[in-house]
Amino acid sequence: MIIIMNAPTEEQMNRILNKLMVNNLEAKTIAIQDKIMITASGGTEARHTELYSRMPGVERVVAVSTPFKLVSREFCADNTLVHVGSATFGDKYIPVIAGPCAVESYEQVRQTAVAVKGAGAVMLRGGAFKPRTSPYSFQGLEYDGLEILSAVGRETGMPVITELTDPRLLDSVDQHVDMIQIGARNMQNYPLLKEVARSKKPILLKRGPASTIEEWLMAAEYIMSGGNNQIVLCERGIRTFETYTRNTFDVSAVALARHLTHLPVIADPSHGTGNWRLVTPVAKAAVAAGADGLIIEVHPCPEEAMSDGPQSLNPVNFAQLMKETSEVAKAVGRKLGDLI
Amino acid sequence: MIIIMNAPTEEQMNRILNKLMVNNLEAKTIAIQDKIMITASGGTEARHTELYSRMPGVERVVAVSTPFKLVSREFCADNTLVHVGSATFGDKYIPVIAGPCAVESYEQVRQTAVAVKGAGAVMLRGGAFKPRTSPYSFQGLEYDGLEILSAVGRETGMPVITELTDPRLLDSVDQHVDMIQIGARNMQNYPLLKEVARSKKPILLKRGPASTIEEWLMAAEYIMSGGNNQIVLCERGIRTFETYTRNTFDVSAVALARHLTHLPVIADPSHGTGNWRLVTPVAKAAVAAGADGLIIEVHPCPEEAMSDGPQSLNPVNFAQLMKETSEVAKAVGRKLGDLI
Amino acid sequence: MIIIMNAPTEEQMNRILNKLMVNNLEAKTIAIQDKIMITASGGTEARHTELYSRMPGVERVVAVSTPFKLVSREFCADNTLVHVGSATFGDKYIPVIAGPCAVESYEQVRQTAVAVKGAGAVMLRGGAFKPRTSPYSFQGLEYDGLEILSAVGRETGMPVITELTDPRLLDSVDQHVDMIQIGARNMQNYPLLKEVARSKKPILLKRGPASTIEEWLMAAEYIMSGGNNQIVLCERGIRTFETYTRNTFDVSAVALARHLTHLPVIADPSHGTGNWRLVTPVAKAAVAAGADGLIIEVHPCPEEAMSDGPQSLNPVNFAQLMKETSEVAKAVGRKLGDLI
Amino acid sequence: MIIIMNAPTEEQMNRILNKLMVNNLEAKTIAIQDKIMITASGGTEARHTELYSRMPGVERVVAVSTPFKLVSREFCADNTLVHVGSATFGDKYIPVIAGPCAVESYEQVRQTAVAVKGAGAVMLRGGAFKPRTSPYSFQGLEYDGLEILSAVGRETGMPVITELTDPRLLDSVDQHVDMIQIGARNMQNYPLLKEVARSKKPILLKRGPASTIEEWLMAAEYIMSGGNNQIVLCERGIRTFETYTRNTFDVSAVALARHLTHLPVIADPSHGTGNWRLVTPVAKAAVAAGADGLIIEVHPCPEEAMSDGPQSLNPVNFAQLMKETSEVAKAVGRKLGDLI
Repeated sequence: MIIIMNAPTEEQMNRILNKLMVNNLEAKTIAIQDKIMITASGGTEARHTELYSRMPGVERVVAVSTPFKLVSREFCADNTLVHVGSATFGDKYIPVIAGPCAVESYEQVRQTAVAVKGAGAVMLRGGAFKPRTSPYSFQGLEYDGLEILSAVGRETGMPVITELTDPRLLDSVDQHVDMIQIGARNMQNYPLLKEVARSKKPILLKRGPASTIEEWLMAAEYIMSGGNNQIVLCERGIRTFETYTRNTFDVSAVALARHLTHLPVIADPSHGTGNWRLVTPVAKAAVAAGADGLIIEVHPCPEEAMSDGPQSLNPVNFAQLMKETSEVAKAVGRKLGDLI
Repeated sequence: MIIIMNAPTEEQMNRILNKLMVNNLEAKTIAIQDKIMITASGGTEARHTELYSRMPGVERVVAVSTPFKLVSREFCADNTLVHVGSATFGDKYIPVIAGPCAVESYEQVRQTAVAVKGAGAVMLRGGAFKPRTSPYSFQGLEYDGLEILSAVGRETGMPVITELTDPRLLDSVDQHVDMIQIGARNMQNYPLLKEVARSKKPILLKRGPASTIEEWLMAAEYIMSGGNNQIVLCERGIRTFETYTRNTFDVSAVALARHLTHLPVIADPSHGTGNWRLVTPVAKAAVAAGADGLIIEVHPCPEEAMSDGPQSLNPVNFAQLMKETSEVAKAVGRKLGDLI
Repeated sequence: MIIIMNAPTEEQMNRILNKLMVNNLEAKTIAIQDKIMITASGGTEARHTELYSRMPGVERVVAVSTPFKLVSREFCADNTLVHVGSATFGDKYIPVIAGPCAVESYEQVRQTAVAVKGAGAVMLRGGAFKPRTSPYSFQGLEYDGLEILSAVGRETGMPVITELTDPRLLDSVDQHVDMIQIGARNMQNYPLLKEVARSKKPILLKRGPASTIEEWLMAAEYIMSGGNNQIVLCERGIRTFETYTRNTFDVSAVALARHLTHLPVIADPSHGTGNWRLVTPVAKAAVAAGADGLIIEVHPCPEEAMSDGPQSLNPVNFAQLMKETSEVAKAVGRKLGDLI
Repeated sequence: MIIIMNAPTEEQMNRILNKLMVNNLEAKTIAIQDKIMITASGGTEARHTELYSRMPGVERVVAVSTPFKLVSREFCADNTLVHVGSATFGDKYIPVIAGPCAVESYEQVRQTAVAVKGAGAVMLRGGAFKPRTSPYSFQGLEYDGLEILSAVGRETGMPVITELTDPRLLDSVDQHVDMIQIGARNMQNYPLLKEVARSKKPILLKRGPASTIEEWLMAAEYIMSGGNNQIVLCERGIRTFETYTRNTFDVSAVALARHLTHLPVIADPSHGTGNWRLVTPVAKAAVAAGADGLIIEVHPCPEEAMSDGPQSLNPVNFAQLMKETSEVAKAVGRKLGDLI
């Protein structure tokens, strides 16, 4: 149950909170935009909706049957639109984010940015702080990487996104990028989720490789209940027994998440498959299933990439992906990137 | 390595087989159509291709690097076309198979058949012998089910398919249907695979819920090396930790299997998701990823179905699926069903 | 709910069956030993137990809350003892079954049998019809394998077990062995389960690599409701994302299955790990968790085995396993094999 | 390859590092205790070992074939002993850590501590900062929780352990506890791993629910290559398709990790099963398989616990666990806790 209050007095607030305590319901108060919302969980009943909606200061009470409250479709039937520069997620246009796995040099990022923009991408990605399985693998250019990404973004007029892996780096990352990514391995890093909830920037929240759809939406709930409702979800494949692919891209999750939440849901076929040959077919599949965007790894020369080479497209393959996926987008009544 | 021989003499055959034994290679001789093929596995080397291709009676030697030989793209670069009545799998037209999970009555099957045909389906499915988790669940109408399915197929002019679960039933099933299905739980039932290899009917081979793509292709290799090369593969979802869906539909597997084998690959979004709401988006995703066909559960009244009700579409939903998926098919340069 | 009737008249039977139909309950009648049991599923209620227990001819009614009925602990609180020759499963003594993965020759089986018997094994295993992933791999010695196994069993005084993969082979297998194994890949091969239910021989039912504990018990229910209650369950590892081991041995499943069912539960650490180094520690773990028996692959010379070499123990390792596991058995108040 | 140098001169160091660069090997320099170690990865060859071992300042060169270097058995054949207060992990005595999932109050922790100490536990656990799936669930008493845990530890003479979830909290946690836990969901939180590597306290590193054994050891490599070699690994179950248990406890992983690494490996049967009934059998299994310790959730009144009640033992069950597991420990030549 979510109780929405419109500029309540202190006394009105207290009456509600006391009543919730008496009813043994766990309450959390959240200020989102101009409203005050109170989420109540732990045994709400049908009669509660009626009961609380009559109390003074209450604008509306929404019954929510799922453990995730604010991010649920029950709470908000309309799609949330998330704007990043000129790109909008959740709308008829399907933005495509592209760029290298890791920022390796100014030249590499610049070259990639020009190529992907030419092919219709509207946002630029690039990793500065890389979470790597081995401590001996390239860990990213770190602060220099942020500077490069930010500079290339400005020069090419593309909003940029990078991954945040450490709550202590929020301010540095925040001031260099237009959107902050929470990576798959950090989906349940709650201190990090609470930290990005404080940011005014939109958040891209990847699904963890072994996380259920419910856990993924609960992670989004952490961010939204922390005060940031500019969240885009990203399906990027789950861990299964199959070994031919790096992960198993869960295309149903795209359709299902769009049914369960009002937040936009995009797809990452690069990590979702781990194999450049499969990136285009899976990108098309994701758009056919309703994805609100794509994020694609592109490298000027994948065979020399310092990370994730096998799953990166070269610029020629990426242009082909855009062309083919654009047709599928039209078939589902949408348009890809800025290819109008 | 596959050695293809054209009407070899007995002496030529023996020389080849002896040489393989000397080279410590495991040989299997298969007559497919007019040719004799010898698959050799267990440590073939590059030089072998050259060496054997010069021997008398040998038409051609194909090096195959994967454990599956006859079903590999390396052996046969062109798509195999599988014809069932007027439907062709592997071609520009994408056949749609539809019908109830289980044959419950003549009326139910007839009603479904008319509806799905009207919406563009070209083949009729229906289970007569049902593999059920519980011995106390409805096990199918068995022989009566075969009769009903076969009768409705004749009356509506649709080829029919049903699942074979027992090698002892091959003859009964064979004479009633146009295509024989090997279900997911029987994908590694080798006596059954060897038995259907003897049939002249095309086989639909579903991927096991916990089988890798390689194991799936090895199961097809059982059938093809047994003499039946009319095989259609079907991705139907794999078992993962996710519980919102019955299975996780592996859309990459569709694209990957088409890359690895010359056999057609179709999709079953009904079992792949277990949730009727997800059937249409996943059908569209599968076609976008390159599926050569679809198999969809349709029931005149899903809420009363004796099995798999939650994942069955009603005729109205099915017609909508056909309409939407047809657009996606066009976007990838193909056509769905007989909707031209 | 299970209704147990003691020599009921036909009229008594009919009254029960009619009443079940009126109550919309699915009934199945089973003759086990001297009793007639009727399982009723699909919406039984608390009041039914009372109601049916008062009807004439009814000895007792047992409410069972799980989907598996006859195999549940609720139906039968005491451990079922399964006797095979002098071995008893489900009792204080823990029988160990050992032998080669596949019967390769009389000499190989004989040599293994003598060695494992010397170390305390009480039953001999050996595969005659081998289910193999590849059609090009060794498929077993088939009928000759049965003869060899049976002969060595007689000569060494050990009961023997082999896997049945095809319902058409039941009679051949039945007359050569003392216990019939249903392999992991056939756990949901229902025609095969129904067939072995007709045998008078005890059945070893392996858990499928991707089967839940509930599905495993439902498979046992097929056999028991078909009239054979001499069933031993065998945990042999499940398929997960981990690649260091062939399967993930689910030690909790051993403890949990013993809690849920009255049937004995044994462990197969050879398939459960796929790695000979892990066989002994996992055997000890299984016994510590309550396993009622072990089945172990032993080969006189594992590096030359025609199948499953990497997971087979040589006789020296096996003797060590017996010695170490025997200590663990004592620690949990039991005794291993015939090492008294 | 690991190059171990004994008090090298700057010139000696530079010669080595230059040579590694010329050989295209990635080098990382680590000071552990009195030595300088250089790990070299990315294509080392057999001849390198010989070559580098002859260079001045080099004490020894160890070839390591696995991607994890410092934590591998190849690097260090002897068990590493990790001391926490009077407890030692990796030795003949098997320490048992016990305590509540979450610190709820002084009284609750005190009561639990006295009970578990009486039954033979030698360390006290308790969560102060709780990572919870839902933002609406109890998040722990935080700083107050640390104070309570620390106070009870002092009063009862038990070393204490709690989970660190945020790198910014290291100092606070470090000064209150004797051992720091990295939880399963943070196993690949690399900034956190790098941070605890700076601590002088021993680290308990839980395996991630979807992490392979190799990834787990790579996570330990982050800590050890960061300068802290006081690491204890903890298997706590992995995520699979099985739903009867919360996780699938991977007992093979205990045996395998002890084979692959010199670090101690303990077991958490509470999270590993999620079901109090299974905790004792799985604890016994883990010890039988070679576990170097146990960590068990105990609550004075599990049905009222604020988190993880279903998997917590009450003091009576815990005493029984200690008694039964102690017998198994003796059977494998070890002793449990301080029960001598």
